[in-house]
Parts: sequence; structure tokens; C-alpha cells
Amino acid sequence: MTTRTTVPDASQRALSTAAVRCLSLDNINSNVKAAKYAVRGELAVKAEEYRVKLAQGDKSLPFDSVIFANIGNPQQLDQKPITFFRQVLSLLENPQLLNNKDVLCTHFGYQDDVIKRAEKLLAEVQSVGAYSHSQGAPLIRESVAKFIEERDGFPADPQSLYLTGGASSGVSTLLNVICNGPNAGVLVPIPQYPLYTATLSLLDAQCVPYHLEEQKAWGTDVDTIKKSLEQAKAAGTDVRAIVVINPGNPTGASLSPADIKSVLDIAAEEKLVVIADEVYQTNVFIGEFTSFKKRLRELQQEVSGKYDNVELVSLHSISKGMVGECGHRGGYFELVGFDPLVAAQVYKFISIMLCPPVIGQCLVELMVNPPKEGEPSYELYQKEYNGIREGLRQRAFALYEAFQKMEGVECQEPQGAMYLFPTITLPPKAIEAAAAENRAADEFYCLALLDATGVCVVPGSGFGQKENTLHFRTTFLAPGTDWVERIVKFHSEFMAKYK
Amino acid sequence: MTTRTTVPDASQRALSTAAVRCLSLDNINSNVKAAKYAVRGELAVKAEEYRVKLAQGDKSLPFDSVIFANIGNPQQLDQKPITFFRQVLSLLENPQLLNNKDVLCTHFGYQDDVIKRAEKLLAEVQSVGAYSHSQGAPLIRESVAKFIEERDGFPADPQSLYLTGGASSGVSTLLNVICNGPNAGVLVPIPQYPLYTATLSLLDAQCVPYHLEEQKAWGTDVDTIKKSLEQAKAAGTDVRAIVVINPGNPTGASLSPADIKSVLDIAAEEKLVVIADEVYQTNVFIGEFTSFKKRLRELQQEVSGKYDNVELVSLHSISKGMVGECGHRGGYFELVGFDPLVAAQVYKFISIMLCPPVIGQCLVELMVNPPKEGEPSYELYQKEYNGIREGLRQRAFALYEAFQKMEGVECQEPQGAMYLFPTITLPPKAIEAAAAENRAADEFYCLALLDATGVCVVPGSGFGQKENTLHFRTTFLAPGTDWVERIVKFHSEFMAKYK
Repeated sequence: MTTRTTVPDASQRALSTAAVRCLSLDNINSNVKAAKYAVRGELAVKAEEYRVKLAQGDKSLPFDSVIFANIGNPQQLDQKPITFFRQVLSLLENPQLLNNKDVLCTHFGYQDDVIKRAEKLLAEVQSVGAYSHSQGAPLIRESVAKFIEERDGFPADPQSLYLTGGASSGVSTLLNVICNGPNAGVLVPIPQYPLYTATLSLLDAQCVPYHLEEQKAWGTDVDTIKKSLEQAKAAGTDVRAIVVINPGNPTGASLSPADIKSVLDIAAEEKLVVIADEVYQTNVFIGEFTSFKKRLRELQQEVSGKYDNVELVSLHSISKGMVGECGHRGGYFELVGFDPLVAAQVYKFISIMLCPPVIGQCLVELMVNPPKEGEPSYELYQKEYNGIREGLRQRAFALYEAFQKMEGVECQEPQGAMYLFPTITLPPKAIEAAAAENRAADEFYCLALLDATGVCVVPGSGFGQKENTLHFRTTFLAPGTDWVERIVKFHSEFMAKYK
Repeated sequence: MTTRTTVPDASQRALSTAAVRCLSLDNINSNVKAAKYAVRGELAVKAEEYRVKLAQGDKSLPFDSVIFANIGNPQQLDQKPITFFRQVLSLLENPQLLNNKDVLCTHFGYQDDVIKRAEKLLAEVQSVGAYSHSQGAPLIRESVAKFIEERDGFPADPQSLYLTGGASSGVSTLLNVICNGPNAGVLVPIPQYPLYTATLSLLDAQCVPYHLEEQKAWGTDVDTIKKSLEQAKAAGTDVRAIVVINPGNPTGASLSPADIKSVLDIAAEEKLVVIADEVYQTNVFIGEFTSFKKRLRELQQEVSGKYDNVELVSLHSISKGMVGECGHRGGYFELVGFDPLVAAQVYKFISIMLCPPVIGQCLVELMVNPPKEGEPSYELYQKEYNGIREGLRQRAFALYEAFQKMEGVECQEPQGAMYLFPTITLPPKAIEAAAAENRAADEFYCLALLDATGVCVVPGSGFGQKENTLHFRTTFLAPGTDWVERIVKFHSEFMAKYK
């Protein structure tokens, strides 16, 4: 008994520790605890620590720079912002610059269309420091509607557009409205961008995974989707929506109009909301991007009745494409075929957070309404845009070719987005070594890569992958070939070590 | 029987309508449906419709402008942004301007400290178009820590600071982590800013209301809090946190150090997390702002043990004060006394949304680290800052004096924030007329005010109020006295009509 009083046992100790504060790991929201988001997880944190060490002059690391290939963050690496966009934004931030337009033109190369655009946007928002309409400034939504109409050949309604702080907050809004309890399920492609699984965890809703077909360039297979859906329904899940990321993240796959039709078929037959994450719509190297909205409108024209009530939401962003302005947090989504009463609830939900960043909204306007042929800023805009596009294509293929040469690495040809997602086949000894450290084998590999080279990628397990397969996701945004060579060298040493 | 087949009854009709789409008002997330947010509700939507009508040249309305006194949106009304802030931001948006510093100085009045600050921030964030650390750029968090230290006389740790997209997203983060199920409760002052009740609704957690004392200048009463707490506990609620808005929204009340201590006492005794919403910390007309953090650190020094484990989170924002940059969506919160494992979950939660807007982060840096005495931009900054401050004070008291003269209107003397929250006593006939329209009486009054004058305020029922009392909240941001006279005239006509 005496011993007990002086040395409390483990459970007593845990209790007394927990009792000191209100909050402990054991009693916070378990949904938050359950959520996983590997893109900014352990590896990213370690990479940041290495970066700080190097910046502080530490010479003990076996590399002299950290390469953040874990996240699509173009302007952190090499991508320059587009001049027209930033010139306009500078005027929005300091309208006093407009008091001396001649000087802007002669000394800083601001063209007339830059000034006019800034004046137009300022007339609309009054000040970028003022809250806007919760759905976004009306004029900006009109520009987005015009853009969608020109892209698809079908009209869009500014009232159905919702500007957002990046696509992520849009996805969060939609899943919040759609998921009505622990029984609600959403079909999510595997591998996927983990925003989807994380948000479903936060909402305590069901992720219903459907696997993409790696051997068919990560395409979408109808039978696979149907099988997952049936299994979930049999287990009592109320499947309400299907997420499609097109072009794919992490896969880079770009869907054909036929693929899109088959998803819309399932949606129409099974009454599923289609969540089309189309943030990489301009990052397409092979073929042409077709939007879900366009395909849906075509089908509604071609086939009477079947597609009339399909509920579709399509998301876009300023973070990706040739814009790459992730730090500005801008984007939008369009609701198609939604019950107006449901749309009113979406409005109320977003109004609680007041409005998306107004400068980000303005950048959405500039993205969807860039300088046109014949306008003074057009030539430079076009040159910059094409330069970024071509650079991304070249880097994608350079990386792809390096992967082709690596033992045990297989990679689909780059089609779009900002990522490659190679399969890696590791020797049994490496898998044993990972298990000994209680780690997934791909995580073990990626950590070893970071420690040896300073290159930070994300293990496939962070996105989901078929059982007994291993992958990692890397962006192809980093400039130069040095970092690719670091990966090649590391990989051959790693394979030799565990042979 | 025949009739039944051709005219389906209501339940059949509802079924067949619902069956057309996946989502209907009856099957979306019921927590979203339950959430209420009056600040941007029916009245605000109607006001916006009137604004559009007037802009389109409609002459049928009995007023020629809409006054948005429903929301603290300074730059929508009259407040000019602070020059130093916006000059720096213009350079962050377009660093190419830095290629010709002389011209910036001679033609646009950019001082040396503007340029240096922009260069310093750019060196840190690389590009405002790049994602930052999810907690915010390290250098900016260091500036915030320094600001807190200078304000309070106690150190702050940059690792415990989290930059946010406005205080709203910070509150959402915290309540998401704290609320662990339908049984979790949070003490919320009534009246309150409805972000709190709305977010608790979304999380399906309990709002445990405690009434503020209108007759004691909307002060915080310990006994009232304890009574609410005991009632909630008796009903089985697990009360985990207490929200304090200081200075108050909608009340404008500014808490004394003694009031703050009594809240901290309850927190220490009952192990409650204190959520101190201090976004109006510079909007104080009477007395001086004391932060919860400062008072907590003082008590920790003075009294051994009792306060050591108090968990406090304090929120601040660029939207209010003399900054008024709501459209930029910036703010921060500081965690004090939190379990590091819980803080890690807060980090993971925010990392899912990647990072707050980087330009908003930079504005936080400028707010907490404005030009100092002796620096070239100091004089203008000080002049602008004091001008805004004095303008707000004058407007607050002009409105207060108008309310003093109105029959059936009582108002506490302005102390802080951006709002007045007068009591209105309406004639029984007005209350009957409201009931006939199925409306709360204060809502009925505010709608009539909007329809007659174009002035948009928010009914007290949107914030909560004691039973059988009626209020409305109005900002005192709108310039001039014309709109105040509109209210006075409307009120006397309304009172006469329903006498």
C-alpha cells in the first residue's frame, strides 16, 4: 500500500496528468485527432527544420539546400508571378499610385490596360480592405461566369458562383453541407489529395474509396466505382457524392470526355452529387481539358430527361495552373442543378466567415479575364504564360525520364497537374527495416531520401494506394536537374544497401 | 381513390420532389441548417438589393442611399486605409517597383522605411503568392511576439502563435478542437457576436449562455456565470471553455482588470479554456485595455499555483481597430498553457487549409510593428491613426446623444468596439403587428427602419438578449449625421403609428 501512494501506477498517473488542464490529447475532438494530412506532416516539418539549420549556417547536413517537392507551391521555388496580375494588384493595394499614371507608365512599364483594370476593380470593391458580398464581389462573379461560358459554350449564372479562399475552403464548405451524419458517405478516388479524407474525418462521415487504374494511366473505371458504391450501400452507408480530381492529384491523369460521361452516368443513376475538383484545368500536357459542366450540358442537350437533375459542383483556383498564386488564397466553385433552398444554406454557411480575401478575389478576376489579343499587356502576358507552361512540361518530362532509368521505379507518362506519382518496388530487406521502425515502407523510403538529399516528397500512403504497392508524389516545379540527380543517386544507394 | 391518384397528398408530393435530387433542405447537414448568422441574414440581403436598385437608377425608394450599419466594415463606409500599410503592400504585390526606388520616393512619397520593410518581408516570404508555414511566416510571428511582449510586459513565444484568415477562422479552429461531441459546452456571453453560436451549432455542441449586465454597462457578473455553469453541469453538459469578447461585441463594453481576474478565477477553479476575443483592443474610449494574457501572467506571479495551468487563447485581427482591413482577412491567436500535444493537433487542423492569406499575414506584421517615432513614415502614420480614432469617438458619441433623445430608447455610454446596442421599448401594438407577421418585434422594427430609411442595423435577437427586452446593434462607422437623423425621424413616426 505504501508503494502505491508514493509511486502511482500508470493509470493513476495518466489521470492526474490529464486533470491539470481541461484539454488533453485524449479528450479533444476525436475527429480532429483522426484526420490525417501528410502533405504538411512529419516529413514537411522535418524539411523545414533542415531549411532553418542551413539558413543558420549549419554545415553538418549532407546537402546544401532543401527541395520542397512535397507541395504544389510554384512561387516558393522558381515560378515568377505574371506581371500584369501583380501590376494591377499593386494599384489595388495603393490606389494613390493612380494619382500619377504617367510616371507609372514611363518608369515602371504599367500599360493602359493595367490602370483601367485596377480602376474597374476598385470601383467595384471600393477598397480591397473592405468585406465584400460573402459569395464574392458581383462584378468578379460576372467575369467568372463569362469565362465559364467561353470555356464551355454554355452559360453560367453569377448567382450560382461562390468565390472562396482557395479551393480547399470550397471543398470544406461543400462537404459540410452534404454530409449529414456518420452514415453519409462520399466516393473519393484513391490515390487522392488528402484534403478529402481529412475533411470527411473532421465531419465524421465515411470515405468510400474507389481505386484509379494505374495501368490505364490512372484512369477512372466505372466498374470499380460501381463495386465500391454497392459495397458501401450494402454496409448501410448513404453515399451522397462522388469526388473526381481532374486533372488528377497526385496522379496527373487527365480524363477523356468518355470517362467524364461515365461518372455523370453513375451520378444520374444513383443520385450522387458530383464534386469536380478542376483546379489543374490548365495544367494539361496531353489532350485537352473538358469540364464536367460542359459534358453535363452536352448530355442534357443530347439525351432527354436522364441528366436533368444532376447536381454538380465544379471548383477552380488561382493556386495552380500558370497563375500559381497559392499564397493569395483565391478560387471559386459553381453550383449546377442544386435545389435553391440548399444553395441558400451554402450561402449562410459561408457568410459566417464573412468573405474570402478580396485581393484573392481580384486575382480570380484577372485569371479568368487576362489581357486579350490587341491589348497593350497581351504580348508580355502571353510570353510569360507560355514560358511557365513550357517550363513545367519540360521539367515533368525530365523527371519522368530520370524515373524511367531507376531500378524498381515505374512511372506513367506525365499528362497534367504538377505531380508525378511513381510506383516504387523496394527490396524485402528495406520493407523489414521499415517495419522494425514501425513505419510504412514508402514513408521509410521518403524519410531516408530527405535525410540524405534534402529532397522532400510525400509517401504514397499519404494519398492512399492499392495494398502491397508503394509510391511517392513529387512535384516537378523545382528548377534545374541537380535535385533529380540527387534522387537518382540516393535511390541506387538505397537499393544497394537493402539488396 | 381516383382523387388520390391524380392529386397526391402532401407527404407523397414531398417524397417525389425530394427524390429528384440527392440534396434537399430536409436531408443536408442539420447542424448547418440550425446555424444562425443574422449579421449577413435577411436584412443584409434586402439592403444589398436596395443598393443595387439605387445603383441602377431606381427612383421608387423613399431614400437615396443604403447605410450598412449592420457590420463593422470601416473601409466600405468612410475609413481610408493607412498609407504606410498600403505602400508596403503595393511593393509586396509588385516587387518590380523596387527597381526604381528614387521614383517611388520623389513621385509617390514612399519613404525609406516603406522600402526597407517591403524588402524585409519579401526576403522572408519570398513571394506573397507562395504558401507560407501553416502557422504563418516565422518572421511575422516573431514580430507579433514582440508586440505582445511590449503590450503586456511578459514574453510571448512565436511557436505558440498561429496566424489566421481573420479572427473568425481562428475561432472556428479552436472550437473544432475543443468541442468533442454533443455534450461539450462553451460559455458564451449574451448578447454575443453570433459567430460563436453559429460555430457551436455547426459542431453540434452546446452554447451555455451567460447574460451580461446591461445596467452595469454590459459588465461581466461572476455569479451569473457560475449560475449558468452550474445549471449546464446539472443538465449533464461538459463545459469546457468560456468565451469573453473584450471590448464587447455588440455591447462595446470594456472589462476592468478586476472583471478579467474573476473570469480567470472561474477558469482556474473549473478548468475552463478561456477564449479571449480581443479584436477590439485598440477601440477603447474609456479606460485602458488590459489583455487576458497580461492579467493571467500577473496572477501567476502574484499567486502561487492556482493559475499555473490556465489554458488561454487570445485572438486579434487586422479587421478592426484603426487598421480596419477586414477584406484582407488577417489575424492571429496565441495559445497559452496548452498541452503541446493538443497544440500539435491545432497545427494539423490548420495545415489542412494550408496557410492564411500571405498578404494578410504581412498586414498583421505592419499592424503590430508600425513606424516608430523618428522613422520617416511615423508622422503621417500617427496623424492618420489618431484621425481615425478621434473620428470614431466623435461618431460614437453623436449617435449616443441622438439615442438619448429618442422616446423608448436607452443606451449605455460608448466605451469601445464599433457598436452601440440600445434597448428599445416598443408599444404593444407594434409587438402585436410583429407577431401577426410571425416576426420577433425587434426584427419587425429593423425591417421597417430599412424599408423606410435605407439604414441597415441588426436586431438584438441576432445576438441574444434577455427575455422581454428588445435591442438593435448599429455600427458608428458611417460618416455624417444625415443617417442618424433618418433613424430619429423614422423612430418617432414608428412610435406614433403604433401608439
